[in-house]
Amino acid sequence: MTFGITPGPRIRKSPYFDATVAAGMTDVTVYNHMYMPTGFGDFGVEYRRLIETVAVWDVAAERQIQVAGPDAVRLVQMLVPRDVSKMKVGQGRYALLNDANGRLINDPVLLKVADDRYWFSIADSDMEYWVAGVAAALGLDVEVSEPDVSPLAIQGPNAPDVVADLFGDWIRDLKYFAFRQTDLDGIPLMVARSGWSKQAGFELYLMDGSRGSDLWDRVMSAGLPHGIGPGAPNVVERTEGDLLSWGADTRPDANVFELGMEAYVHLDMAPDFIGKAALRRIREEGPKRRRVGLFIDPPSLSPSEDNWPVHDPSGAAAGTVSIAVPSIRLERNIAIALMDIAHAAVGTRLVVQTPDGPRDAEVTALPFIQPGG
Amino acid sequence: MTFGITPGPRIRKSPYFDATVAAGMTDVTVYNHMYMPTGFGDFGVEYRRLIETVAVWDVAAERQIQVAGPDAVRLVQMLVPRDVSKMKVGQGRYALLNDANGRLINDPVLLKVADDRYWFSIADSDMEYWVAGVAAALGLDVEVSEPDVSPLAIQGPNAPDVVADLFGDWIRDLKYFAFRQTDLDGIPLMVARSGWSKQAGFELYLMDGSRGSDLWDRVMSAGLPHGIGPGAPNVVERTEGDLLSWGADTRPDANVFELGMEAYVHLDMAPDFIGKAALRRIREEGPKRRRVGLFIDPPSLSPSEDNWPVHDPSGAAAGTVSIAVPSIRLERNIAIALMDIAHAAVGTRLVVQTPDGPRDAEVTALPFIQPGG
Repeated sequence: MTFGITPGPRIRKSPYFDATVAAGMTDVTVYNHMYMPTGFGDFGVEYRRLIETVAVWDVAAERQIQVAGPDAVRLVQMLVPRDVSKMKVGQGRYALLNDANGRLINDPVLLKVADDRYWFSIADSDMEYWVAGVAAALGLDVEVSEPDVSPLAIQGPNAPDVVADLFGDWIRDLKYFAFRQTDLDGIPLMVARSGWSKQAGFELYLMDGSRGSDLWDRVMSAGLPHGIGPGAPNVVERTEGDLLSWGADTRPDANVFELGMEAYVHLDMAPDFIGKAALRRIREEGPKRRRVGLFIDPPSLSPSEDNWPVHDPSGAAAGTVSIAVPSIRLERNIAIALMDIAHAAVGTRLVVQTPDGPRDAEVTALPFIQPGG
Repeated sequence: MTFGITPGPRIRKSPYFDATVAAGMTDVTVYNHMYMPTGFGDFGVEYRRLIETVAVWDVAAERQIQVAGPDAVRLVQMLVPRDVSKMKVGQGRYALLNDANGRLINDPVLLKVADDRYWFSIADSDMEYWVAGVAAALGLDVEVSEPDVSPLAIQGPNAPDVVADLFGDWIRDLKYFAFRQTDLDGIPLMVARSGWSKQAGFELYLMDGSRGSDLWDRVMSAGLPHGIGPGAPNVVERTEGDLLSWGADTRPDANVFELGMEAYVHLDMAPDFIGKAALRRIREEGPKRRRVGLFIDPPSLSPSEDNWPVHDPSGAAAGTVSIAVPSIRLERNIAIALMDIAHAAVGTRLVVQTPDGPRDAEVTALPFIQPGG
């Protein structure tokens, strides 16, 4: 089901908006109060491009929340469930933000941009207010803002070649989530090894919103010999690879133990942070639910538009499907679900309530496809 | 320019979604991570319905943030720039939320639902995290949550008759923003005198998301003799009447003095609240900008998709248009703009940079049309 969306000033256009329109953008979503392309008219072609060559994505909607000032380290440490004291400038860390009840409220990448300046590269919730609310309540000496920074992702097996052609072979030595500030013919940006796919990838953090089309055009030109074309965060590839979509997979109240992301939460080694006591309690009691994979019986499904209820064979409520898609590489229906712990074991038989009726399903391990698979 | 938007689980469907699809919804926006209808195929008909008879709007995306518990009053008072101690259960107040720098971050209606329970009925930013961040930092004994509450608006001159037919004539005595809890054939809801138009209006706060279609159908049936039909928050009517659209008119950094909303900020009478010191400083120094009306020369414009730059006749930057529309009742182009104070006097001649080129304009007073006008 597709509706029209009429642009208006409450929702922002990305610096790459004109370029994506010129490239044939047909569909959008809204993410952090900004339009983000989701399709250019041929999903199959865009999927193959991501898996086999290289795609460029307008992910400017992945906004940065900057924390700057004398209390920046202190504030960041209060929010992040790992020790940030040893982070170096130019490093990034996956930083799960939890509220006081242990609920996961965003899953940004934290970038240390300077000794007294950090960026949270955020998923789709207004973390600026969370960060600023804590700072305001405590009277901390920090400035919380959203700088003029707009990532452009280059994703796919040929991405390193494209980015090396643009910036040099040093980019091949960047560790995951590491970044370096540079420019491209005077366009100020940061090159980061990052991206919301399980393919090789980089993100260019454009630092001047007036240069969006310039950057897009240069990336397209450099990518031409490598088979580049437009694309977007891909719901099938992310499901196959088990990338978390905050908001789709987590709403309204999931915690890191349920989501299987406790490895990123250093409850015993990190200094105090908001949510620590609640997460300790959840660890002690054991999570009530678990994020798992499901194989859903044929025929082939369209990508799910809603969270779908899951029942056990007797009809009792057992959990919720976050996302269901037809896997292109596996040629069967796959889903990610948050299941009550009693129904989370691999091999458990279940019934998924799709909008077209019930469909048999079976629990399986995640991810469906390993990186490089 | 219209794009397709493909529903997905990250963005929620309203409890009225099926009913609005059945009613012919053609266009949506995204507001508080939820689809909200913006059109049913004929803008002129929908405008006339709002001005002349009565329209029903799915505004479930106007989410409620509940603050409940022993410290609820204390927390609310820290956030709201007016004295809340004398509010009674059943009363509502327009409550402007400011950050520590005095920036307006949301303009909700605050409802006192019980002695230790308040709802912020919010505009399009995640105020749950602002409220919860302050509470978490101070260790307050409150629970911050988003309850299962979804407003349905009934707006237009015949709205009181429709709502009286449904609930009784007592609704005619409700003061503005006042509300009462009741039910409709067992559908739990609150009736509030409220709504984002300058016409007469009510909002039904549905308190059971599974009953959306039931409520929609009952309202439609009751409204039939009064000329009811589907509609949506109307960009032309709101501009004519000068209703603030947070996010469109305020981004990124406007304060209540610039927006002409200082009457709702009781700097001298309210207890301390976040932003008070910054707002006092702004008052002393005087605002740098001012929200004004503009008449823009013919020919007729389409509603603006972006904030447009405004220059003075010499070409110097002078301000920004928030929204420009063709006024149907005035039969000329009107706009709301945030102008540098030197260019804000009524009668000032200016040049608006539309996407189709420059257009002469003149500053005028707001609103363009008085309530009942």
